[in-house]
Amino acid sequence: MARTASLSGFPEWLPEERLVELHVLDTLRKTFELHGFSSIETRAVETVGQLLRKGEIDKEVYGLSRLQDEEAEAAKQNGSDKSDPNALALHFDLTVPFARYVVENAGYLAFPFRRYQIQKVWRGERPQEGRAREFTQADIDVVGDGELPFRYDVEIALVIAEALSALPIPDFRLRINNRKLAEGFYRGIGLTDTAGVLRSIDKLEKIGADKVAGLLKSELGATDEQAALALQLATIRTEDTSFVDQVRALGVKDALLDEGLSELQQVIEAAVQRAPGKVVADLSIARGLDYYTGTVVETVLVGHEQLGSICSGGRYDALASKGNRKFPGVGLSIGVTRLVSRILSQELASASRAVPTAVLVALNTDDSWSAAQDIAASLRGRGIATEVAAKADKFGKQIKFADRRGIPFVWFTDDDGKHQVKDIRSGEQVDADPMSWTPPEEDLHVRVTTA
Amino acid sequence: MARTASLSGFPEWLPEERLVELHVLDTLRKTFELHGFSSIETRAVETVGQLLRKGEIDKEVYGLSRLQDEEAEAAKQNGSDKSDPNALALHFDLTVPFARYVVENAGYLAFPFRRYQIQKVWRGERPQEGRAREFTQADIDVVGDGELPFRYDVEIALVIAEALSALPIPDFRLRINNRKLAEGFYRGIGLTDTAGVLRSIDKLEKIGADKVAGLLKSELGATDEQAALALQLATIRTEDTSFVDQVRALGVKDALLDEGLSELQQVIEAAVQRAPGKVVADLSIARGLDYYTGTVVETVLVGHEQLGSICSGGRYDALASKGNRKFPGVGLSIGVTRLVSRILSQELASASRAVPTAVLVALNTDDSWSAAQDIAASLRGRGIATEVAAKADKFGKQIKFADRRGIPFVWFTDDDGKHQVKDIRSGEQVDADPMSWTPPEEDLHVRVTTA
Repeated sequence: MARTASLSGFPEWLPEERLVELHVLDTLRKTFELHGFSSIETRAVETVGQLLRKGEIDKEVYGLSRLQDEEAEAAKQNGSDKSDPNALALHFDLTVPFARYVVENAGYLAFPFRRYQIQKVWRGERPQEGRAREFTQADIDVVGDGELPFRYDVEIALVIAEALSALPIPDFRLRINNRKLAEGFYRGIGLTDTAGVLRSIDKLEKIGADKVAGLLKSELGATDEQAALALQLATIRTEDTSFVDQVRALGVKDALLDEGLSELQQVIEAAVQRAPGKVVADLSIARGLDYYTGTVVETVLVGHEQLGSICSGGRYDALASKGNRKFPGVGLSIGVTRLVSRILSQELASASRAVPTAVLVALNTDDSWSAAQDIAASLRGRGIATEVAAKADKFGKQIKFADRRGIPFVWFTDDDGKHQVKDIRSGEQVDADPMSWTPPEEDLHVRVTTA
Repeated sequence: MARTASLSGFPEWLPEERLVELHVLDTLRKTFELHGFSSIETRAVETVGQLLRKGEIDKEVYGLSRLQDEEAEAAKQNGSDKSDPNALALHFDLTVPFARYVVENAGYLAFPFRRYQIQKVWRGERPQEGRAREFTQADIDVVGDGELPFRYDVEIALVIAEALSALPIPDFRLRINNRKLAEGFYRGIGLTDTAGVLRSIDKLEKIGADKVAGLLKSELGATDEQAALALQLATIRTEDTSFVDQVRALGVKDALLDEGLSELQQVIEAAVQRAPGKVVADLSIARGLDYYTGTVVETVLVGHEQLGSICSGGRYDALASKGNRKFPGVGLSIGVTRLVSRILSQELASASRAVPTAVLVALNTDDSWSAAQDIAASLRGRGIATEVAAKADKFGKQIKFADRRGIPFVWFTDDDGKHQVKDIRSGEQVDADPMSWTPPEEDLHVRVTTA
């Protein structure tokens, strides 16, 4: 993996690497569909107004302009397009576009609406390991009309745990918290700018407890005791529901805190039973984006914690609305490119061969191309990926061609119409009938296996 | 299909429409892989210099700029970014990016390199039926190192004919011509600006023969006789190789013409045999893009000719090169969005149900959710897409929920643990074992069938 992208932050895979990515994408799709999630895609392009309507965002957005558009060109030179809410830009996640899609198509959707969405997104951030400017996300969300039972928060976490378990990746932990719990707690200790406290706590891993305490005091007017309590809450981390007692022991009383505790307890209880070892209650998790209102999730790969979260999301009760009609939702987003980059750079998994092709039909003479196509068609009819040689080179050269491409079998037909197939890895060559021969099961399709 | 896109030219599908698109994409992928094409994706973003390096293009390109990039913002206001070849823009097709990818990764690829690529592309053109600003293309190409046997031109046409035949679309015709044939012919009658003649002939369907003759005379200095001959060539259209005699009868002699005739003859001969009725030699086909050097192809849906070409491409011998090393290629590109839009707007095909889910497991009591998840897991283990109800509503309401979502089966478990499954379309309800029950084959997965 010595290759570097020719444009920093815009990774591209070689064909055999792409097979690993395809395996990841296929596995996610299969899991999501087995759980009844419908596929949708939204356009890559949103209006700037739509992308920024939740206020200041910390994502770097790519704006679009038609190179041949003279009018816009003139406007740009007047500096007027930056503030135009109708200007177009590339989406930076799939949640904001999904919320827009739900509102626009509410009359055509059956609620609660379950969808998965696997698409590229773009952020103009400084590229680094695990952070690209163009990358693929795989999201699942459930959105209700008016209300959405909390049970979906539990279900989404379990589906994601199942999906991640099916991937060729190291062990992982969903770190789950609840904004109601945190906000209720902050309110209970007298810190009213709960969003501000969350933003500070969100920096805990980056800048450490002392600096966060400093921020809480200098920016939010917290007392030493308030800062200490907020930080104490963030240290609580349990693999079962014992976090409830630990929070209670801090002696804070608040109705929203109670609600949050009960919700997080339900998620952790179900996870202990149905996805043992995959989920922890982690009260330091805050999530930067301000549209979350309850459950919040980040996910680490065990042993690869510095890679950052590979799956994040949560509950959002107010992201989508149409007049008085609200569409609360809950969802999680897997960072596919981040995962695949790591799988490839650390060779955690690989494809059993470099190409889909299982069989190369060799040519005896240049005139036998059409007959060779008949053989290939017969094999393909049974699902065996097959190529036909383009030229009647010497057999040795045709075998070398297959070997170079990673094709395991070469098919020969002699002048008398006798067929043989050679496994070029073992050298074994056997008689074969184009109407019935099949390769061993493990050679039929490309397989992706962990190292 | 009364819905219109909220952003003109950026179509989005409803979940049941997306199932049709997914079926089209899956079918193409399967066909391409059976023929040994490897999947790759290239980044959506290229430098402007890369996109425009083949000179003036007729595609409207979307340029990118980071909204938060103060420096670029300042540059824009000085009007300096338009001419910056390092500025970023969205790709307008998949051929130019593929050529760049081949050159960059030549050391890692085995040639001839066969790849398919299914991605979105963007063009800032005026949207109309069959022409979107964001749309999906599905391309196959074979690229050689130094040389590429002509046989691949034949093979690519046959693979595409097979792929299109597998789609839920009306009958189609690949209209095939050869640039060598046309250019040799023009040269043979004394018209040396062969690219200019091709550009004029390309307008034949749009402006008619008289106006093209006028252009040939006024812009290219053609005599009446030369213009007449060029137009006569463009009227030749045969379903077999008889076009060769018809061209010969025009009495023009040129070595390049001979080469082009022989190449087109090979393609048509193979197609008559292996894809009967799907291919015509059509000597009016020119293709606008100037990188084609031999075979050129456009494809019409029979009865939907006004939709424009649904699959185009051809041979390009000089698109990709690295110093003296040339990478000639041949490829075709299917306009997936154009096809899917037509399938949906004319209801040519539809999905057997609106969601992947085959079974809804109903809840007897709210406490039975976990037991219901066990049943669901058992069904999913056999590939049956299953959802669990979120609330123990009255059974009638849970059935209604399944009906509204298009789920065919509802699973009930009574207090004694007795299981039954109901086909809510027929009303039939039978005893069922979660460890063994499966739905009828035709209900296991969503099927997409032609109307």
